[in-house]
Amino acid sequence: MPNPTAAMLTIGDEILSGRTRDANMPHLALKLGEKGITLAEARVVPDVAEEISGAVNALRARYDHVFTSGGIGPTHDDITADCVAAAFGVGIDVREDARAILATNYANPDVDLNPARLRMARIPDGATLIDNPVSKAPGFSIGNVHVMAGVPAVFEAMVASLLPKLTGGAPLLSETVQVMRPEGVLAGPLGAIATAHPEVSIGCYPFSREGVFGATLVARSTDAPALARVAEALRALKAAIEA
Amino acid sequence: MPNPTAAMLTIGDEILSGRTRDANMPHLALKLGEKGITLAEARVVPDVAEEISGAVNALRARYDHVFTSGGIGPTHDDITADCVAAAFGVGIDVREDARAILATNYANPDVDLNPARLRMARIPDGATLIDNPVSKAPGFSIGNVHVMAGVPAVFEAMVASLLPKLTGGAPLLSETVQVMRPEGVLAGPLGAIATAHPEVSIGCYPFSREGVFGATLVARSTDAPALARVAEALRALKAAIEA
Repeated sequence: MPNPTAAMLTIGDEILSGRTRDANMPHLALKLGEKGITLAEARVVPDVAEEISGAVNALRARYDHVFTSGGIGPTHDDITADCVAAAFGVGIDVREDARAILATNYANPDVDLNPARLRMARIPDGATLIDNPVSKAPGFSIGNVHVMAGVPAVFEAMVASLLPKLTGGAPLLSETVQVMRPEGVLAGPLGAIATAHPEVSIGCYPFSREGVFGATLVARSTDAPALARVAEALRALKAAIEA
Repeated sequence: MPNPTAAMLTIGDEILSGRTRDANMPHLALKLGEKGITLAEARVVPDVAEEISGAVNALRARYDHVFTSGGIGPTHDDITADCVAAAFGVGIDVREDARAILATNYANPDVDLNPARLRMARIPDGATLIDNPVSKAPGFSIGNVHVMAGVPAVFEAMVASLLPKLTGGAPLLSETVQVMRPEGVLAGPLGAIATAHPEVSIGCYPFSREGVFGATLVARSTDAPALARVAEALRALKAAIEA
């Protein structure tokens, strides 16, 4: 059976402005690889309601899971929960269990849990909470969509809470071989190896270091014996071509 | 007139595996902001032909420009040029001017310009070349789609070659105010400022530093006087709330 598939949806003008680099996508990608869930697409959309709802609906129809990052804090630009509710066509309101969890984060909840912060307890109808051991305000899963925070420490904690509950597949394994020759010289024999082993994805990433051109060859597969055969072929190619 | 819009399409299993972080999207985002072109969406897709062609067609129909990164080297996994030709329904072949440019990169072109490297001179019919002063192999523009390399130094050089040829708009300006108070305390008055100034996008990005919670407020607009008014309001909010 093929591994489950997933998309990541990053929400935020901050990422699209180039000012902040998205650290959550690489983190999720690595964790999904270990879990045997294939990250098949990633998207970044701005803080615009129709864009968020539209992307959620496009992605949840296509992949087994959708993981979102960003837009679930207390400020006016935090509109993800409402957009996800709209995408599913369900209601959204402050939920008592979420409010109770949120209250544990404040010294004096009656004062500190102001209307803005209470927005973080707004949960779409039918969703399940995702635990946030860092700052309490929960994420949530609805259908196959998992809604998490944008702050990396909180996102990572939510991923750690969520992933054990999902059904994975065969972990994505990889082997890396570095060849100190330009990729244009490698390309012919490398293509032959790739054609002979369609069950292994082989990437070639060129670099130059102190004026010397080289390439990092990365083979990826969920099939360990096939990966081992390819790794052997890549090492043989390296030996032949560097000789 | 509103600014032209753009999408970025990053192509590569390497990015989706989490192993390599995409540095090209933040670079392009900043350069487009200076040029007055709004980066409205970013996507990452794997090295799979239908995924690349499908994303190119979806994005070029929706935005004024599409910028792609990755998949135009000499190896078997470099399939972007063919996928873009397929998306446009045009032919693709080695083009003489591209081959001549490529040849200047090699000491002995008759030997060095092997079949794999010659693939880098395959250009879809009707495309215009994008200059690559770093490693010669050109990118290309076809319609509103601009196809560039994934290696950051080459991508950046191609962006520098291309952007002066595109029509921009009003540069995206920003003002940043850092407030040493939690965003939950700021959220109410900040929302009021945002509502009063719909022509300015205001983002709130929480952080914690040595146990102290704070928030970075970033206002963005192409309208300088409006931005100045909002910056003044944000500084007044900071003074009031930190007092």
